[in-house]
Amino acid sequence: MMQFPQLNGFRGAPGLVRLIGHRGARGVMPENTLEGFEFTVRSGVVALEFDVVLTQDHVPVVTHNHHLLNAATRGADGRWLEGEELKVSEMPLSQLQSYDVGGLDGRTVYGQRFPDQVFMSGIRVPTLGDLLDTALTPQGAEMLFLLEMKSDPEFAGDNLAAETLVSEAVNAVRARGLEQRTVLHSFDWNLLEVCGRIAPDMPRSFLTKLPENAGELGEDSSRSVAPDFASLGMPVPQAVAEAGGQMWCPFYADVTPESVAQAHELGLLVSTWTVNEVDDMHRVIEAGVDGIVTDYPGRAQRVLLERGLVWSEDVAQMVAE
Amino acid sequence: MMQFPQLNGFRGAPGLVRLIGHRGARGVMPENTLEGFEFTVRSGVVALEFDVVLTQDHVPVVTHNHHLLNAATRGADGRWLEGEELKVSEMPLSQLQSYDVGGLDGRTVYGQRFPDQVFMSGIRVPTLGDLLDTALTPQGAEMLFLLEMKSDPEFAGDNLAAETLVSEAVNAVRARGLEQRTVLHSFDWNLLEVCGRIAPDMPRSFLTKLPENAGELGEDSSRSVAPDFASLGMPVPQAVAEAGGQMWCPFYADVTPESVAQAHELGLLVSTWTVNEVDDMHRVIEAGVDGIVTDYPGRAQRVLLERGLVWSEDVAQMVAE
Repeated sequence: MMQFPQLNGFRGAPGLVRLIGHRGARGVMPENTLEGFEFTVRSGVVALEFDVVLTQDHVPVVTHNHHLLNAATRGADGRWLEGEELKVSEMPLSQLQSYDVGGLDGRTVYGQRFPDQVFMSGIRVPTLGDLLDTALTPQGAEMLFLLEMKSDPEFAGDNLAAETLVSEAVNAVRARGLEQRTVLHSFDWNLLEVCGRIAPDMPRSFLTKLPENAGELGEDSSRSVAPDFASLGMPVPQAVAEAGGQMWCPFYADVTPESVAQAHELGLLVSTWTVNEVDDMHRVIEAGVDGIVTDYPGRAQRVLLERGLVWSEDVAQMVAE
Repeated sequence: MMQFPQLNGFRGAPGLVRLIGHRGARGVMPENTLEGFEFTVRSGVVALEFDVVLTQDHVPVVTHNHHLLNAATRGADGRWLEGEELKVSEMPLSQLQSYDVGGLDGRTVYGQRFPDQVFMSGIRVPTLGDLLDTALTPQGAEMLFLLEMKSDPEFAGDNLAAETLVSEAVNAVRARGLEQRTVLHSFDWNLLEVCGRIAPDMPRSFLTKLPENAGELGEDSSRSVAPDFASLGMPVPQAVAEAGGQMWCPFYADVTPESVAQAHELGLLVSTWTVNEVDDMHRVIEAGVDGIVTDYPGRAQRVLLERGLVWSEDVAQMVAE
C-alpha cells in the first residue's frame, strides 16, 4: 500500500485513532456544505467524508441523496420543499443551486435527529470542484477526502451511468492533483470495480451494512446497490480484500474485534460509520478500528482524549499526558 | 433609548427573540476565543457576550476569570496547568498569550460540562482589540457586543481599579468607532456606575442572580461584587432602572413573566443567561424575554424556529412559515 500515501491519514496506530467528519459535521453544521467542511477542518478533523452525485448537466455535486431532501431544502421564497422530492440528476446545476440547504426543518423526523445543528440561510449545494479547491488553500493543506459516490438505484447495473459518475468525480480530483489525498468510497461494489479500472491510482473503500442491523434512519441508498452478503460465501473483509479494496468501512453496529482483526490481517484499514453516541465510540475503539466517521467531531475528540488517545500526530505534541 | 441604536439588536418583538452567543458558543467551540466568536457569527448569531479583564500591562483581554482556568489551559509543553491558578492581572500579555486555551480537560468537572466542545490547539487568549477588529471586517459587519467587565473581588470598592478597567475597555471600543455596537455589562453595580460616568454614550446591562438560586457551576465571580438584593428595598428591575440601566440580564432560573413585564414597563430590555437546555429556553421565551444568552446557539435557533420565531429580521425573510 506504499503507493497510496493518503492511507496513512486513515491508519490507526498505538495511541492514535483517526477521525473523519461525516458530511462535514452534520451534528453541528448543515451537512455537505462548504461551511460545514470548513468548520470540521478548523476543528482539527481534516479527513472529510461526503457524497457525490451528478446533475443533469453532469456536474459532480456534493449532496447525499439522489433526491433533494425536503427536510433540508428551502426554495428561493424561503418555503420548505414539499411533495415528491426533486431529483438532482434531472436538474441543471443552476437550478440545484437556487435552493437553500443551510437548515433543517425541525418538524420532520430527519430534522429532529440533529437538534443542535445551526440554522443558516443562503447556503448552496457545493460542486465537488468547490470543495476540492479548498484543499489547495493554506487552511486546507492537510485535508483528506473520503469521496463517496452514490449509485442511483434506478441505474443499478448500468455501466455507462457508473462510468460517467466515476469519470466526472475522478477528473475533478485529477484536475487539482489531489489523487494522493483522496480515497474512493461506495456501497456499490460494481461502481468500485469501475473505480479500479478508471482510477487505479486511487485507493478504494468498501462501505457495508449487514442485513441483520436494520437501516439507520435517513440513510437510504445503501440497500439496493450493495452486494448480497449472504451469497458472498466468505467473510466481508475477505470479500473486500479479494475485490482489491484497501479500506473496509462497516456500519458501526456490525463492528466486532474479530472482524477488525481479520480485516487487519488482510492488510485492510477499517473505518466505521456513523458513530455519534459516546458509548458506541468507546465500543468501536475497543474493537480496534483505525478510524471513526462521525457527525460530532468535537464529541469524538473528547472521547479519544479521555482514553489517552489522539486523532493526529500533531495533536499528540499539543496534549501531554 | 433612541440614542442607543445597538439596543435594537437586543430588543424582542412579536415573532422575534434575540440570541446572544455566550463566550462565543461555549458548548461547541473553546470559549472566549476568536475561533469561537467567528463560528457564532458565521452561524448567524451576531450578538456576542464575552468577558474582559486587564493584564499586568493593562491590556484588556477576553477571558472569563481573573485566574486562568487550569481545566482549559495548557502550557507550551502541552501540559494542563496545575496547582494554584495563575492570575491574569499578574502577568503581561506576552506571558498570557504563551498559553493554549483551545481545549478542555475532560477529567475535570468543568470539562465534563461541555462534552461536545471541539478540541483545538495553538489557540491564544485574544485581546479585546483583536475581537473588536473583527467587527470592522465584512464578515463582522453585523456584530454586536455585550461586553462584560469582570471586577476583581480583591479590588472591590477600589474605584481606581474600576476606572482603569472601564477606561481601557471603553478606549478600545472608541478607538474603533464601535460605541453604537456595544453594550457595557457587569454584575458589579459600582463598576456600572463608573461606566455611566466614563461612557454615557454607551448603554448598560445589569447582570443579576438572586441568592435563592444557587450558583451555576463554574461561574465564580458574581457573588462577591453584586449588590445585596435583599437590601435594595425594591424589585430588581426597578433598581436597575433607577441605576440608569437600559438592560436587565437575570439568571435564567430567576426569570418570571411578572418580572419581565415589570422590566418592560420600566423601559428595560431583558436578556437572560445562560440558557442551555431546551426546556429552559421554552420557559424563558414564554416569560417574554427579549433575548437569550446561550452556549448552544444552534440549539436555541432550532427552538425558536420550532415555535415559529426567529432571532433576526433577516432570517424571517429566509424561512417562510
